[in-house]
Amino acid sequence: MKLASLKGGRDGRLVVVSNDLAWYSPADRIALTLQDALDDWARCEPELRGLAESLEHGSVPKARFHEHEAMSPLPRAYQWADGSAYVNHVALVRQARAADMPESFWTDPLMYQGGSDGFLGPRDPIPLKDEAWGCDMEGEIAVITGDVPMGASREEALAAIRLVMLCNDVSLRNLIPAELAKNFGFFQSKPASAFSPVAVTPDALPNWKDGKLHGKLEVELNGKPLGEADAGVDMTFDFGTLIAHSAKTRALSAGSIIGSGTVSNRGPDGGPGKPIAQGGLGYSCLAEVRTVETILDGKPSTPFLRHGDVVRIQMVDARRHSIFGAIEQEVAPA
Amino acid sequence: MKLASLKGGRDGRLVVVSNDLAWYSPADRIALTLQDALDDWARCEPELRGLAESLEHGSVPKARFHEHEAMSPLPRAYQWADGSAYVNHVALVRQARAADMPESFWTDPLMYQGGSDGFLGPRDPIPLKDEAWGCDMEGEIAVITGDVPMGASREEALAAIRLVMLCNDVSLRNLIPAELAKNFGFFQSKPASAFSPVAVTPDALPNWKDGKLHGKLEVELNGKPLGEADAGVDMTFDFGTLIAHSAKTRALSAGSIIGSGTVSNRGPDGGPGKPIAQGGLGYSCLAEVRTVETILDGKPSTPFLRHGDVVRIQMVDARRHSIFGAIEQEVAPA
Repeated sequence: MKLASLKGGRDGRLVVVSNDLAWYSPADRIALTLQDALDDWARCEPELRGLAESLEHGSVPKARFHEHEAMSPLPRAYQWADGSAYVNHVALVRQARAADMPESFWTDPLMYQGGSDGFLGPRDPIPLKDEAWGCDMEGEIAVITGDVPMGASREEALAAIRLVMLCNDVSLRNLIPAELAKNFGFFQSKPASAFSPVAVTPDALPNWKDGKLHGKLEVELNGKPLGEADAGVDMTFDFGTLIAHSAKTRALSAGSIIGSGTVSNRGPDGGPGKPIAQGGLGYSCLAEVRTVETILDGKPSTPFLRHGDVVRIQMVDARRHSIFGAIEQEVAPA
Repeated sequence: MKLASLKGGRDGRLVVVSNDLAWYSPADRIALTLQDALDDWARCEPELRGLAESLEHGSVPKARFHEHEAMSPLPRAYQWADGSAYVNHVALVRQARAADMPESFWTDPLMYQGGSDGFLGPRDPIPLKDEAWGCDMEGEIAVITGDVPMGASREEALAAIRLVMLCNDVSLRNLIPAELAKNFGFFQSKPASAFSPVAVTPDALPNWKDGKLHGKLEVELNGKPLGEADAGVDMTFDFGTLIAHSAKTRALSAGSIIGSGTVSNRGPDGGPGKPIAQGGLGYSCLAEVRTVETILDGKPSTPFLRHGDVVRIQMVDARRHSIFGAIEQEVAPA
């Protein structure tokens, strides 16, 4: 089942989207918003699935689905907690910052509490007041949970995953060192993120296995491929583990979004891997590109995002059909 | 105007509460929930104020207001961002952790993104799975904002403050050092917080001045006074400054909660001050008590909270009438 929130009000209008993303059918007689559906999932899920089936069969009124009419599936959420599950990425970025990485990072998930009060739409511009802040995209996978009790096991956590999305976790790299030095985590350095036009239930994703979404995450910058790392590879902590980590000392409420962190694959030699132009899998963020440049050339040569740059993130199936729709955002003056 | 959310569903039922906290009148014909009212404040505020006035005059149906029937005013929120505006507190806690405090902490606000997906009610137990986690209360002031545009000035930020509350920002002290060492801020060490039964508009608070709430924040532990620091004293950053800091790189959505951090006053000599039993103003959290003990005796002697301990936080007016109602929570096994 695929769900989206069409533009309208602060929380959008819940619709069911056809598997091929061509059509939608309004779901407002079941739940006005996706959050409403998540709040009452036991009642809403079967009704939404019934509607989705009818939409595939053409037995309900339908209209053309346009990705640019969608907000992020949850336009605002009660929680956005982002992991760094691809520890490879963390190790690389730290290497470029000349910061040590403790060995425990391979066994104890690293997560931060992100701002969730207003997400950008998947086609919204990224408002950037100052290019000197060092704006970067981060291509990620994210899940939306139901209610998760405090102390949930990995298995309980996996069973609470309701929907899967793609994410552009926008980061302001040049604000990060000073902010992390203050020791309270990210705040100004993590402005609003964006999510894919469509959220998909795990059962509708053939490549969802063991709490990971397998498949190439395609990241483009200004129309050129930047990354195509496999989201199921080198993910040290699966979503069950990330959710259980989040719920160790407190319950999570329905509608919590948990992110994977920047998708990142090692190269065949265990190193950072090569750019796509050199036959590698490339990178899902510019920080990693710049890290590799620093390692190879002593300094980075790729600039961070500037006004007018366009980022595109999507994942396609075996027939090259988009699974979640595309995040496509232009960086714009705030 | 005083507002509360009576128990019912995930978001409670919005009611207007009389100034003396004795009565309430349902506000559901204006807005079902406090978040709904904040989302449409321009329309709802005058109607809610009209209802509040009628309640004071006895010209609308009313019922007895019982604090234990209230949830936190926003039982869940889209944002909870907590500052450390009483830099005195930060300096003390760091001193006890043997961690340096950069000089910039006196000029650049320290804030962290907290979890907001589910707050404890003001009379709910604090669920604590493991006493070894070092559970602590933190007595704080918090405000709820309307929409705040990116890059808002302090003055714009002050104008966006809709409501003021008290907060118990529950902390798990023994989880903090390892978590902060990971450099991504608090996560497991900051479980669900609780807020006062009633939220109050700034105009109804005679001691609201220059973006600060003046007056003694009374913190009790097991019926004994622990702290009575003045929330308007030694607050290095007022709420306008904290909100503007939060909105530097992104907009804040209506219903964002911004916290002051633990209220803390210096002693007359500029030091940490004395316990109430010794004629001082005491402390709003146990970490500060333990810090002072460490400074004086070389080691802390007051334990963190244990199952059965009861924390009470409130603020009274000149006639000793409770302004926000009391947060009163027993620590209980999870």
